Amino acid sequence: MTAKYVYFFGEGKAEGRGDMKNLLGGKGANLADMTSIGLPVPPGFTLTTEVCTEFYKNNRQYPSELKGQVEEALAQVESLMNKKFGDAQNPLLVSVRSGARASMPGMMDTVLNLGLNDDTIQGVIAQSGDKRFAYDSYRRFIQMYANVVMGMKGELLEDILEEMKEEKGVHEDTELSAEDLKKLVALFKDKVKETLGRDFPNDPHEQLWGAIGAVFGSWMNQRAITYRKLNNIPAEWGTAVNVQSMVFGNMGDDCATGVAFTRNPSTGEHVFYGEFLVNAQGEDVVAGTRTPQPIKKSQGDGTLPSMEEVMPESYAQLMKIQQTLETHYQDMQDIEFTIEKGKLYMLQTRNGKRTAGAAVKIAVDMVQEGLIDEKIAVLRVEPTQLDQLLHPSLDPKAPRTVVAKGLPASPGAVNGEVVFSADDAEEAARIGLKVILVRIETSPEDIHGMHAAQGILTARGGMTSHAAVVARGMGKCCVAGCGDIKIDYAKQQFTTRDGKVFKKGDVITLDGATGEVMQGAVPTVTPQLTGDFARLMKWVDKFRRLRVRTNADTPQDSKVAREFGAEGIGLCRTEHMFFDAERIMAVREMILADDVDGRRKALAKILPMQKGDFKGIFREMKGLPVTIRLLDPPLHEFLPQKDEEIEEISQVMGVHAATLKAKVESLHEFNPMLGHRGCRLGITYPEIYDMQVQAIMEAACELIKEEGFEIVPEIMIPLVGHVKELEIMRANAVRVADEVIERYGVAVTYLIGTMIELPRAALTADEVATQADFFSFGTNDLTQTTFGLSRDDAGKFLPFYVEKDILPNDPFVTLDQKGVGELVRMGCEKGRSARPDIKLGICGEHGGDPQSVTFCHDIGLDYVSCSPYRVPVARLAAAHAALKSGK
Amino acid sequence: MTAKYVYFFGEGKAEGRGDMKNLLGGKGANLADMTSIGLPVPPGFTLTTEVCTEFYKNNRQYPSELKGQVEEALAQVESLMNKKFGDAQNPLLVSVRSGARASMPGMMDTVLNLGLNDDTIQGVIAQSGDKRFAYDSYRRFIQMYANVVMGMKGELLEDILEEMKEEKGVHEDTELSAEDLKKLVALFKDKVKETLGRDFPNDPHEQLWGAIGAVFGSWMNQRAITYRKLNNIPAEWGTAVNVQSMVFGNMGDDCATGVAFTRNPSTGEHVFYGEFLVNAQGEDVVAGTRTPQPIKKSQGDGTLPSMEEVMPESYAQLMKIQQTLETHYQDMQDIEFTIEKGKLYMLQTRNGKRTAGAAVKIAVDMVQEGLIDEKIAVLRVEPTQLDQLLHPSLDPKAPRTVVAKGLPASPGAVNGEVVFSADDAEEAARIGLKVILVRIETSPEDIHGMHAAQGILTARGGMTSHAAVVARGMGKCCVAGCGDIKIDYAKQQFTTRDGKVFKKGDVITLDGATGEVMQGAVPTVTPQLTGDFARLMKWVDKFRRLRVRTNADTPQDSKVAREFGAEGIGLCRTEHMFFDAERIMAVREMILADDVDGRRKALAKILPMQKGDFKGIFREMKGLPVTIRLLDPPLHEFLPQKDEEIEEISQVMGVHAATLKAKVESLHEFNPMLGHRGCRLGITYPEIYDMQVQAIMEAACELIKEEGFEIVPEIMIPLVGHVKELEIMRANAVRVADEVIERYGVAVTYLIGTMIELPRAALTADEVATQADFFSFGTNDLTQTTFGLSRDDAGKFLPFYVEKDILPNDPFVTLDQKGVGELVRMGCEKGRSARPDIKLGICGEHGGDPQSVTFCHDIGLDYVSCSPYRVPVARLAAAHAALKSGK
Repeated sequence: MTAKYVYFFGEGKAEGRGDMKNLLGGKGANLADMTSIGLPVPPGFTLTTEVCTEFYKNNRQYPSELKGQVEEALAQVESLMNKKFGDAQNPLLVSVRSGARASMPGMMDTVLNLGLNDDTIQGVIAQSGDKRFAYDSYRRFIQMYANVVMGMKGELLEDILEEMKEEKGVHEDTELSAEDLKKLVALFKDKVKETLGRDFPNDPHEQLWGAIGAVFGSWMNQRAITYRKLNNIPAEWGTAVNVQSMVFGNMGDDCATGVAFTRNPSTGEHVFYGEFLVNAQGEDVVAGTRTPQPIKKSQGDGTLPSMEEVMPESYAQLMKIQQTLETHYQDMQDIEFTIEKGKLYMLQTRNGKRTAGAAVKIAVDMVQEGLIDEKIAVLRVEPTQLDQLLHPSLDPKAPRTVVAKGLPASPGAVNGEVVFSADDAEEAARIGLKVILVRIETSPEDIHGMHAAQGILTARGGMTSHAAVVARGMGKCCVAGCGDIKIDYAKQQFTTRDGKVFKKGDVITLDGATGEVMQGAVPTVTPQLTGDFARLMKWVDKFRRLRVRTNADTPQDSKVAREFGAEGIGLCRTEHMFFDAERIMAVREMILADDVDGRRKALAKILPMQKGDFKGIFREMKGLPVTIRLLDPPLHEFLPQKDEEIEEISQVMGVHAATLKAKVESLHEFNPMLGHRGCRLGITYPEIYDMQVQAIMEAACELIKEEGFEIVPEIMIPLVGHVKELEIMRANAVRVADEVIERYGVAVTYLIGTMIELPRAALTADEVATQADFFSFGTNDLTQTTFGLSRDDAGKFLPFYVEKDILPNDPFVTLDQKGVGELVRMGCEKGRSARPDIKLGICGEHGGDPQSVTFCHDIGLDYVSCSPYRVPVARLAAAHAALKSGK
Repeated sequence: MTAKYVYFFGEGKAEGRGDMKNLLGGKGANLADMTSIGLPVPPGFTLTTEVCTEFYKNNRQYPSELKGQVEEALAQVESLMNKKFGDAQNPLLVSVRSGARASMPGMMDTVLNLGLNDDTIQGVIAQSGDKRFAYDSYRRFIQMYANVVMGMKGELLEDILEEMKEEKGVHEDTELSAEDLKKLVALFKDKVKETLGRDFPNDPHEQLWGAIGAVFGSWMNQRAITYRKLNNIPAEWGTAVNVQSMVFGNMGDDCATGVAFTRNPSTGEHVFYGEFLVNAQGEDVVAGTRTPQPIKKSQGDGTLPSMEEVMPESYAQLMKIQQTLETHYQDMQDIEFTIEKGKLYMLQTRNGKRTAGAAVKIAVDMVQEGLIDEKIAVLRVEPTQLDQLLHPSLDPKAPRTVVAKGLPASPGAVNGEVVFSADDAEEAARIGLKVILVRIETSPEDIHGMHAAQGILTARGGMTSHAAVVARGMGKCCVAGCGDIKIDYAKQQFTTRDGKVFKKGDVITLDGATGEVMQGAVPTVTPQLTGDFARLMKWVDKFRRLRVRTNADTPQDSKVAREFGAEGIGLCRTEHMFFDAERIMAVREMILADDVDGRRKALAKILPMQKGDFKGIFREMKGLPVTIRLLDPPLHEFLPQKDEEIEEISQVMGVHAATLKAKVESLHEFNPMLGHRGCRLGITYPEIYDMQVQAIMEAACELIKEEGFEIVPEIMIPLVGHVKELEIMRANAVRVADEVIERYGVAVTYLIGTMIELPRAALTADEVATQADFFSFGTNDLTQTTFGLSRDDAGKFLPFYVEKDILPNDPFVTLDQKGVGELVRMGCEKGRSARPDIKLGICGEHGGDPQSVTFCHDIGLDYVSCSPYRVPVARLAAAHAALKSGK
């Protein structure tokens, strides 16, 4: 059997199929598919991707069978169109397009009107009865071909066109006459000869093979290679080439061209939505030089006639086709069509891009219409996209004073105190302040401040500036390039055009969706999570196996997360509670104490406050599990660092500044990330953890006793590296917990587990599991230690690494599956081998990243835990993972 | 078959054997063994460790068979000794001793003279003809028994003894008469009754079972439990009990007792060496109240008669026995004997402890004597012990001025400039200065300074002070508790008793073997590595499979290491070369440069110097492999940190202080260990590595061309976490190297590999191996990242962890096999799976730790690399590992 390299399609029959994307490319498969279901598609044929592969395998030689197969297919097209390629009376014109499996920038795109020469032009004139149209098509063809196939610079011919217009004293191409255009054709050809030293090809077959060669050749150009590398597309895939007969929407008033969506891509409403232009080519609709007319009468404003009115037959046909397409593809379609002399041709259909809101509505509607089932509906909404729907937005009813406007770089609406440096942002955040980081521009050195801030405002830079890119990556609100403000770092203030001055500490509001900067705190509303969204999420919950918890440290966060569907708290950090103004003094007193008794005395002051915190959180999470991590950061984080602050605080505390300074110095660490923190504090100062366990258990006991709660507190010991650490900490916690339980005389079940956030803990998880009721993988720290990469310092090279593709992603955003993930996998296996019923979860920020959630599903974790606003994203990602893996 | 719980030994016959240590304990097996080979051992029997196990299994009940078996064995002893237990005329007295597999502090040790009561004492008086001896034995028995078996405080009876001596007006026990002692016996018994409310047992069988019960009971006392926990001894092992007939060296002038070594334990000389006392008990020899007499005439100074002279027959018998013992045990023995009425009894023999020098000599001698083979000789010297022989000592011919003397806390002889803080020590070491850290005491905060210093001198603290313990752990010279000096931190000086003042920067010398502190630098001599040592090391090299390289950065270190048998350099760090005074300015210029060209210009100044360094090292290592690690530390390490220094250096460099300060600030890192260092520098500033590769390759080419060298440079890329980093760095290095090779026109083979020092590198070693000719496991950093533990900061809790047995060892000294080791193992397997011929080594400090070397052998590494002075230790450890594993 001879290899088949060419697939014909036309008049309801196609040799290819829709599922042959690998062989025919996306475009070719789609054309075959549309043809097969009886849509009017201009006939043509596809040269397969195998031709491309063979071409490069054989030193840029085509397979010997190709020529014959192309001629045969061309003959079929000629026969269907009743035209002949290269014929002077009745010429067939074709388009040549590339079409890889996935659309790929950098590839040669399109050559139209191929087949025109000084002979065939006569036929076109005769048939169209429009000499101007014919010569305009001819000169366009030469321009396009010379540029993309012959490699001539576009401006060389463009200049000649401009000269001609100047000479004629006209502004628009359309004002040139047929004779002018005919002259242009001749001038163009001369210029080609002059520039390239060879004639513009007159022979249509030579033109065709030239165009085909150009498509295959572009597969290996630099831009395409780079794009493939960035997107992990193997060079072996190759591209296909589509040759299709031309149809014209610009051959008179019985011609037209248009684009449409089968539903509203912005709202998702089930209304056909599109525009068209009479006597025009596709590019005219997009270019915006003429105002397009509505397709449906109801969608116009009455100033321009609709297609429904001027071409009722084609309109009726189009309505039928769009329904056929939706039924066939079971999805909202984005279509292009052309009407040539009253006959409708479909040029393209594809799944239409849509906003997140539209995606949800379309998915839910289609289930109700019986087009798709709930599973497919769930898969129709991308988890990454969902984020758009979940950010708070400004309360539309709230008054506001807009003081400046920049680019809407990353969505969300936030307010906070203005700070002008990343360090200030971090410090403020550490003590629980909400801040907006205001910078002329941001750089990698500012990453830690961006992390800490609610939102970012920059004076310079566009939508792809550092601030914009990083903020979007972090899911943080950002207004970039706000030229309306002048920042003065020295004075720690910025000034608006109106002369309003905002100093450090002043409150502003950012709207990342509009780019507006407002004075003061404008109230926000939480997103509406009812209606279609709620319905979809119900299906989501039906299909997922993975549970989704949240990382929340306050009752407020817990409440928001619960509304977003969180099924418990996976990580409640207790250190933020230590920074509260009322408590920090007691914390410092504890740190400065010389002995256990002194520390106990100070801790006793904190105990009732911590208990109150836990009660608040338990109440919000009533009936759901809450994992509380005991104190984690090194103690020096609670002490002032700068001399002025030391002086000030020493006075407030009534301690010698020298004493305080000595303590600060003795606690200094070279690498605090790897220092005296986590359970190492619990081991050396057991009284701290004792107090915390007491607070947790008393909170639980009191709620059970007084409010009839059911609650199972989960006490989490951080930074365990060796089972003995956990053994000791567990014994201490059990002692304290049982003492509280006995004192209150209520029955409380509680769990004690650990973070797995050090490689050693994962490597020895079988040992660690003997002392743990649960593991929570702390993938933030695990990423830091596995890569040997400080998140706070990585700004100097990590963006470079990601940009240069040394790392495929920021590993703090998307879990590194090969390295960090391997440890997580190992930790799960070893943990379960020692304790089959151990509860396994993840509480790093990866818990809200869809790719990472998929990984967590695949390795069989019980739950992921993420920030409140990511909870629905994680739920959806978990459902996708379950549906795609089939388990 | 009934279980056998009791094993008899006596008169050349024993039911047990020497290899039954698990069943009979060390002592029991040894007594059986000596009996079997015909040595005169007082007969007795052993209750097995199984009795102990059963005892605890059955709620502290003995197996029912025990009583009968003990009685039977006792009867055999009675028959041999021709005495009867509890008989008033001819009583048998016995000792009862514990005996676990390994000797164990905390266990009940010994009860002597058991069987004495008011009846049997008469028989002893009659038989010995010495009433005083008899009552002295009786009162000693009561004291011992009341204390260790009945649990009475020792001082209660001791006080009565003291009162009696006071009453009699005498000073020594020996001055009390038989009647006094008889009275004491009565008083002791009364006191026991009064204190414990029960009679001292009169029945010898009750005494015996009481003593046996006390031994088994002591197995579960707190000290024994703690000791077992610390030493990983399972409680199931249990202890045995040995019951043996008493013999007396203090029954007259035909009695004696002595201890001896079959060879000199200090020098290893093949000369029998021992002391004895006539009419004495064993404890008298050890207590030192009487001056012991020599056993051999030739060993005395003539003032006291030797055993050879006064007991020629027993002497001759002893000489024969010691030879039998050496032949039997094929090792130098430490023996105890007693002569009762002219009859020699052997009480104990065991392998004698010896100095490192003696161990080497004895091992070599015994091979020459045909006693042992070379393999056993190699196993006879402990790798940990070898260290003693390898440190430099003071040149005996060199003049010296001793200014103070402290405790010889850790061996070695070193000199350096005095510094008074750990930070100063570290800073000085960083720029290549040799310093002595002088502190009143050290604390965990000083660890980094101790690491950096040549030696440590403290004014306070003993042999087990922090400084002493840590210094020995580090193998660092230390003189501790030197009360002769007064340290004044404020003035940065110390003063000796003679009023000599030493300021910061003054040079002193320490001798860790004598505790002497000397003024100035006293020359040292490297240890003699010839003679027996050389012979032994030749065998060592014959049996080991693992290669041993060294970590050396200078030609001098390389030379020393080669003399110690290093087979190449496993780690040559290049950063120290950057600190050289001539170069640091160029390095800073490079760091301050704004662009690549500026950096290249500065690097060009360093190039010739680096080339010179490498040539020097290559020359010393002629014919051996040299692995050079490219620049590793973060750049801020090369800049001044304090304001004064910045000011000073800015003037020298002609740069604005503000510019310099801004750079210092911009390079500041929160966690430099996890920061912008290693290949991350190479990725962002490729010109640095390019210069280094050029220097390495030019050095190699010139030596090959000019001096006909054979050399295969191994270029090592540090801190790789992802294969792409190595891919890029490798490509750069190859480009530069090949350019140099072409320029010189010589053929050079070179290898490019990487450190595996991040968990991710180990986890993805199969990928990394595709770009690496070799792996060198950097277990220092790998330990830091796997544990999430900064070595610089761990001082605050790591000593506590080791002390409290949370970690079995300091993981920076002995490789953590379960965690870090698991990554090393994984790295090896994955590395080899991708590249079977990949060279694998280790270059962390663990490379010189015997336990870790064993691990490296077991997992199949090709080599270990360690500091020069540890090379012989590693060679010996490698041989041990090979011989013990049999592969």
